[in-house]
Amino acid sequence: MRFLHTADWHIGKKLHGYDLLEDQSYIIDQIIDLAEEQSVDAIIIAGDLYDRTVPAVDAVKCLNEKIAKINLEKKFPLLAISGNHDSPTRLETGSPWFKNTQFYLTTSIEESIEPIEFSDTQFFLLPYFEPIEARLFFDEKITTIAEGVTRVLQEMKQYFDSTKKQVLVTHFFVAGSSQTDSETKIQVGGLDSVPTTAFEGFDYVALGHLHANTALNHERIRYSGSPLKFSLSEITNEKGVYIVDTQKDQQHFYPLRPKRDLQQYTASFETLLDPAFYRQVDREAFLHFTLTDRAVIPNMMNQLRRVYPRILSVERQNGRTVSKKNLTLADEEDPQRVIAHFYKEMTGEPLNEQQQKWLTGLTAGGEKEREKSCSQEN
Amino acid sequence: MRFLHTADWHIGKKLHGYDLLEDQSYIIDQIIDLAEEQSVDAIIIAGDLYDRTVPAVDAVKCLNEKIAKINLEKKFPLLAISGNHDSPTRLETGSPWFKNTQFYLTTSIEESIEPIEFSDTQFFLLPYFEPIEARLFFDEKITTIAEGVTRVLQEMKQYFDSTKKQVLVTHFFVAGSSQTDSETKIQVGGLDSVPTTAFEGFDYVALGHLHANTALNHERIRYSGSPLKFSLSEITNEKGVYIVDTQKDQQHFYPLRPKRDLQQYTASFETLLDPAFYRQVDREAFLHFTLTDRAVIPNMMNQLRRVYPRILSVERQNGRTVSKKNLTLADEEDPQRVIAHFYKEMTGEPLNEQQQKWLTGLTAGGEKEREKSCSQEN
Repeated sequence: MRFLHTADWHIGKKLHGYDLLEDQSYIIDQIIDLAEEQSVDAIIIAGDLYDRTVPAVDAVKCLNEKIAKINLEKKFPLLAISGNHDSPTRLETGSPWFKNTQFYLTTSIEESIEPIEFSDTQFFLLPYFEPIEARLFFDEKITTIAEGVTRVLQEMKQYFDSTKKQVLVTHFFVAGSSQTDSETKIQVGGLDSVPTTAFEGFDYVALGHLHANTALNHERIRYSGSPLKFSLSEITNEKGVYIVDTQKDQQHFYPLRPKRDLQQYTASFETLLDPAFYRQVDREAFLHFTLTDRAVIPNMMNQLRRVYPRILSVERQNGRTVSKKNLTLADEEDPQRVIAHFYKEMTGEPLNEQQQKWLTGLTAGGEKEREKSCSQEN
Repeated sequence: MRFLHTADWHIGKKLHGYDLLEDQSYIIDQIIDLAEEQSVDAIIIAGDLYDRTVPAVDAVKCLNEKIAKINLEKKFPLLAISGNHDSPTRLETGSPWFKNTQFYLTTSIEESIEPIEFSDTQFFLLPYFEPIEARLFFDEKITTIAEGVTRVLQEMKQYFDSTKKQVLVTHFFVAGSSQTDSETKIQVGGLDSVPTTAFEGFDYVALGHLHANTALNHERIRYSGSPLKFSLSEITNEKGVYIVDTQKDQQHFYPLRPKRDLQQYTASFETLLDPAFYRQVDREAFLHFTLTDRAVIPNMMNQLRRVYPRILSVERQNGRTVSKKNLTLADEEDPQRVIAHFYKEMTGEPLNEQQQKWLTGLTAGGEKEREKSCSQEN
């Protein structure tokens, strides 16, 4: 059995306000092409098909088209689960009919326990769930994700056929993994991470949730990573999919080539606008610039955008925000930045003008309060 | 061929703020029971399956369960189209797989033109569309719904098999129909209504959109009406479905019994709270009261709600709002009422407390303006 393992498509996600739908459509087509070239027996999507529980209508159209292409047009068996970004109920629409053509989409603990068998392999499809769901399902005092997952896997093991391989498809934070900035944190203080020891007995664990394929260093337990870079912290990440051969016990990572890459440059404003420089650069890419200038540059963004249409952010090398850390962590001294950063991290979009105004109004009020209390103290 | 014709389920609709999901689930189950008792060969839903383009997750769960029950559990062929309340893209999720089990769900002009054949009958499934969609599809200067529908039907007629009956399933306002207050108006000044003559050649036209089965008085062109009463103006409407026999050329209307009916009473406040009266009344119903009292009654609604949990509205027989017309039309002298009424008509929900506050603030400002300009005129 040879299958392709991908995850975290996040269809409908925006990158600093830029629509990624075209990039997502392009990269999924590339995944399908690879599956054909490599003649895999099935495709696995380990959760977070959508970026939001209520995806925009264009995102729905895109996923509908891609799953129909994979399963109905190209005739690949398809195994998928819901992730923490998907609405189980919305995503499962149509799923009772999908089984007819070997498309198995699992969105609840209940459906996950019995395996789906293909030739030499038993697939167990365990979607993301909250501890309360496991508690209700088993009617036992389950309080953490680790306890919930362990309990579900215990049930699954009753169905293990020793003449076959066992593959688990799931979507959680596994202890010891490293994170990027584009993942929604689902564990607090390490309580809701799943230890790798929970997965003993499985020949391969196809994970979703973390966006770097290198997030966990384990031979049989792997994140495929997202097919696209979703944050500046993933800029050096190689994006791709795994193709797993259960017979030969091999896993190979196949890199993908995005329609538009995410890149960063450090240069002076003058250099950036110099044809000798920008001719060497992929101007269509999503770009982050670090300016070496110290002087104020009037109308800077507008000038840069005429050359580079997809600028994610521009920072000053010599300003307060020069360090790598500050590319992603807000300066905690400035409440406006902290809030704006938090908003962007949660929604993927910057504050709009109206929100910025409210925020300025609010924090200006706070400043006054602070000044008042300071003067009283003095 | 015998089929059941229903429409306008509007799953997720609220009635004056009351959730109808339980009532909708109940009435759909009754429709399925009737289909079984009557051994129909197929079930037709003529649009507006949902009440909103982005239905709430509970509404999605409800429709998913009902269509699976009809088509997969009870094995009825199912023919459905999107209405003006449905999002074609969201609704069509899964539809390429549905055909395997004779569930045909059409959401675009393109899919509507070729018939679906069952024994002696050709079914044409034409979803609601805007004139611009017909214009783009045919690349012709189509400006009204009537032109669009006529053009599509012309295409369909090429597929007519003279040895078979032709049934059209569609979702428009047909000229000469009478409306209730719970339908969203899709025609302006009669321009966007479809004349009955457009449907010549069809043996039966199964319509959705208008909520009274009596909306159009025509032997072969019928609205099934909604399965539930969705406004006070439908209070005397009998709700049900048609069962159509194409062989015998017969159509019978079968009434449905709602879980909770919509009723109205005219009485004094004292009478309404009198056990001798309320024991005779279905207290679980959705109720509209017309009070005969003239005096102010403190804490009126709270007292009434302790006896009748689902009061839609209470009016004074002797007040300004006594006439039948005013049950549904806002008093145009009071801008607050006009806006609140419009909001409720559009969303099915009353203004919440915060909205009411804003509105009061806004119109209070307007009142002041008006007073000022009046005093200037004087």
